[in-house]
Amino acid sequence: MDTPRLVEKLLRGDRRALARAITLVENGSPELREIMAGLAPHTGRARIIGFTGSPGVGKSTTTNAVVRAARARGLSVAVLAVDPSSPFTGGALLGDRVRMQEHATDPGVYIRSMANRGHLGGLSWAAPHALRVLDAAGFDVVLVETVGVGQAEVEIAGQADTTVVLCAPGMGDSVQAAKAGVLEVADVFAVNKADREGAKSTLRELRQMVAMKDRADDEWKPPIVMMVAVHDEGVDELWERLDAHFAHLESGGGLAERRRRRAREEVQAIVLDLLRSRIGVGDGGALESAARDVAEGRRDPYAAADLVLKELDA
Amino acid sequence: MDTPRLVEKLLRGDRRALARAITLVENGSPELREIMAGLAPHTGRARIIGFTGSPGVGKSTTTNAVVRAARARGLSVAVLAVDPSSPFTGGALLGDRVRMQEHATDPGVYIRSMANRGHLGGLSWAAPHALRVLDAAGFDVVLVETVGVGQAEVEIAGQADTTVVLCAPGMGDSVQAAKAGVLEVADVFAVNKADREGAKSTLRELRQMVAMKDRADDEWKPPIVMMVAVHDEGVDELWERLDAHFAHLESGGGLAERRRRRAREEVQAIVLDLLRSRIGVGDGGALESAARDVAEGRRDPYAAADLVLKELDA
Repeated sequence: MDTPRLVEKLLRGDRRALARAITLVENGSPELREIMAGLAPHTGRARIIGFTGSPGVGKSTTTNAVVRAARARGLSVAVLAVDPSSPFTGGALLGDRVRMQEHATDPGVYIRSMANRGHLGGLSWAAPHALRVLDAAGFDVVLVETVGVGQAEVEIAGQADTTVVLCAPGMGDSVQAAKAGVLEVADVFAVNKADREGAKSTLRELRQMVAMKDRADDEWKPPIVMMVAVHDEGVDELWERLDAHFAHLESGGGLAERRRRRAREEVQAIVLDLLRSRIGVGDGGALESAARDVAEGRRDPYAAADLVLKELDA
Repeated sequence: MDTPRLVEKLLRGDRRALARAITLVENGSPELREIMAGLAPHTGRARIIGFTGSPGVGKSTTTNAVVRAARARGLSVAVLAVDPSSPFTGGALLGDRVRMQEHATDPGVYIRSMANRGHLGGLSWAAPHALRVLDAAGFDVVLVETVGVGQAEVEIAGQADTTVVLCAPGMGDSVQAAKAGVLEVADVFAVNKADREGAKSTLRELRQMVAMKDRADDEWKPPIVMMVAVHDEGVDELWERLDAHFAHLESGGGLAERRRRRAREEVQAIVLDLLRSRIGVGDGGALESAARDVAEGRRDPYAAADLVLKELDA
């Protein structure tokens, strides 16, 4: 499939084109430049919702429940599970197959995991690119799901229009959540597995955290939803909170600001990636010889960085 | 304390100077440049061991047990817990206080959490800087502990001389570990809480993963140690494996290569950070206006990145 044809098919929501485009994103393919140029005028329509939380809180179950909620409201949904997966285990694909079963015959649902095979920083442009593809393909809602412990992963979920931070009782998750800096990105908290012991104390901890945070009077105060996603309990309430947050963003100008911020991160990541390749890793590259000097104590890292920059400017 | 005096005190291992220097790292202080220049000739002596694993596997308990093991062998130890903490919860400091109790009166032990308040990429230079400070302060062993789920966090632990990936039974951790791409960085696997149900199946899963990975004949095959850190069981075996890996690195030239790689990441992170500030975030900056165009669909992210780069070159 040549690129103009791929773009044309993408814009019609063709599933094979979608799968191919996201694989190109995973691989950092040079064709992305042309694809993104073709998609740009057709983006900015989807509503993007991020889900993040520690392993074991039930992120997949929750996103699946939210997919059902969106479908019940007549909305088409794409799910992007950002999974810093090892190419070696194929874990992401297996997860997809399991999750696809429920929605396999529904043309209004598309679920895809995206592995990240790149270096540090790879996720910063890959995730926005994939969201851009799904947005241009015409989905009403795009859910992006990340493991909410790492810095990069939390930031990706935090770049959604609305970010949901998932907790679960008895795993020290609410504390972990706070530690991972997810509090700052949470628009909505959801306590999943709320039928388990410890749900009340998780709720209490979260309430305290929300209360402790200073905010202006007109600022959004993250609500906390108790749910049991596997039994579809609390999912309608979660959906209502998501709607309320989106309405808040739209009325207050926050939506445009969030989308600018997302674009800024995306453009910055591309710029830094292009610069990274100019710096020169590999034998004889400026970075390589600088690193050798630093490792052997002959130069400090800042003096080495200055040398690399001088080479870049030359 | 002026900077030359701080450096002098650091090199003598003064605790107040250490605390101050790591706070300067956390804050990205401009004094770091002069400090790093002063420390450079005195680095490269400490043996750096990384610990990573999902929340709940017992990282703190394990590092504490390893601290005891090192002390029993007459080695001085520093622990750096890299914690993408919210400034708002103070979780890191609380953790330190709890953990310090055991070793509070031991002058051969220093434990410090480091929060990361910066943007994406902040951890990439902050963690190596802090390791450099502890190395120059004369510790024989420096343990760096990260939450092993995020891309950035896994990469930091992976930049140690020896990286230990911790798992625990019954949490789906070994699978999560593989998903997070930690397999590639593991030099040693440790199954903590090995007295719990499911320890054998965790061991089996890990064995399969290790076996599946292609490696050259002379390449290190990560051993798997079963342990109950809270009862000090398996800790001596873990220490032996750490020694064996370090000997392997020293004999095969791998140690110099790892240290070059660590320096390369550190220098690259500084270069990219300097470039990031040149790009211009803020009203009227090249990045800001590019982001606006992208958010509003008038330009694709690559065309926007080209504009930013042109501005940078001008």
